[in-house]
Amino acid sequence: MRRSIEDTSIVFIGAGNLATNLAKALYDNGFRIIQVYSRTEESARALAQVVEATYTTDLSSVVTDAQLYIVSLKDAAFVQLLPEIVAGKENALWVHTAGSIPMDVWADKVNRYGVLYPMQTFSKQRVVDFQHIPIFVESNSEADTRFLKAVASVLSKQVYEATSEQRKNLHLAAVFTCNFTNHMYALAAGLLKKHQLPFEIMLPLIDETARKVHEIEPHLAQTGPAIRYDENVINNHLQMLSDEPEMQELYRLISESIHRQNS
Amino acid sequence: MRRSIEDTSIVFIGAGNLATNLAKALYDNGFRIIQVYSRTEESARALAQVVEATYTTDLSSVVTDAQLYIVSLKDAAFVQLLPEIVAGKENALWVHTAGSIPMDVWADKVNRYGVLYPMQTFSKQRVVDFQHIPIFVESNSEADTRFLKAVASVLSKQVYEATSEQRKNLHLAAVFTCNFTNHMYALAAGLLKKHQLPFEIMLPLIDETARKVHEIEPHLAQTGPAIRYDENVINNHLQMLSDEPEMQELYRLISESIHRQNS
Repeated sequence: MRRSIEDTSIVFIGAGNLATNLAKALYDNGFRIIQVYSRTEESARALAQVVEATYTTDLSSVVTDAQLYIVSLKDAAFVQLLPEIVAGKENALWVHTAGSIPMDVWADKVNRYGVLYPMQTFSKQRVVDFQHIPIFVESNSEADTRFLKAVASVLSKQVYEATSEQRKNLHLAAVFTCNFTNHMYALAAGLLKKHQLPFEIMLPLIDETARKVHEIEPHLAQTGPAIRYDENVINNHLQMLSDEPEMQELYRLISESIHRQNS
Repeated sequence: MRRSIEDTSIVFIGAGNLATNLAKALYDNGFRIIQVYSRTEESARALAQVVEATYTTDLSSVVTDAQLYIVSLKDAAFVQLLPEIVAGKENALWVHTAGSIPMDVWADKVNRYGVLYPMQTFSKQRVVDFQHIPIFVESNSEADTRFLKAVASVLSKQVYEATSEQRKNLHLAAVFTCNFTNHMYALAAGLLKKHQLPFEIMLPLIDETARKVHEIEPHLAQTGPAIRYDENVINNHLQMLSDEPEMQELYRLISESIHRQNS
């Protein structure tokens, strides 16, 4: 009997935002998550319950007979714990989910290894639809690359092979695109709060700014005082931020950067 | 016979991105745009054609019998040209569309005046749906405020009164929310281009980042290396940007700002 790819037995090492969303997506698509490890019992149990797995907070109790181990930890913890994580399970297929960690981190630790990087922002309290999330895979063998692409393709329509070098640059671009963008929202939210104005009022502008770059390249989609080099407005805004030196400095540098890129 | 509000005769002073989008929206909703002024003939003609108006590049040829004059110029040009703009038309209703200019700019120039500020990012090549654009109005009389709210309500479901002080802060927040966000997209696009990676691959992340703050406050929606204070990743990224000192400096400052806001 030919077994389907969803029969792959999977262990999750880590139960953070990304692990939680990825494990749920795999579970919802019929994969068998057999165990979840997390340093904190609360996180381990919460995720294990949802995906009908067992859980542990002890790395030495992680089962040794899973086919695929997915490691999704904070980068520093991952590198530090690596020998302990893989001990006794060196012949399984190991992947991590980090944009920033090269595949070679596995090289002298296990025999079959790779990366499965879903490029998206994940929060535990929000379910995301994996179908349109680009997933980048890489492994040290053609067979495992094919296998990882097959796994990823069950979740998403956008599955790509990417080298560690490409993935590293994608991740850096994602930090600007997502984390720094979100911080611009957060700074605006703080400013509005200070003046008793609701953040919700910004949502149409946020949505249109995002939609616009589906059609127009970002540097051509730019509007506002910086690209017009409207010094009156820029100086007024800097003045308004005089009691927020950090925001003032960011305002000045980003405005200069916009002006330079477009002049 | 009671005349409908759409019979209001309107002149546009300015034919830039905002003027173009606002004039089209008014025209599409049945308002009569009778004339368009722009410093450049090309812009004046282009907009006038679409809204079936006459056009001029000479301020002294602007008709004197319109009921509503909408001025949408770069802030510096507006302030400088103001006496010339209103000459001979001091009894009409005048509004400007700028977030950053207080209503008082009109005070000793004309008798009836105000502001109609649609808070959105406008590009000429992209038609936006005004229905969900917040429009903020203000005037020096209750009757004209009612009238401006009625005009704005034909276009949008989100019409608010806002003082010049509130509008100024909304505009500053909008610069962070829209212009600076778009610049984060642009910086990412430049980085991807340098590594032969397509910007399109970022669109799901851009969309999710925008959607997320409909449900979760921005500072709670934050993810990525800065909020985890993952120094390994942050230092790698700074290293990767060593030949882009401007982006490197922005990366450093924004990451510090994220870390400080959330610690």
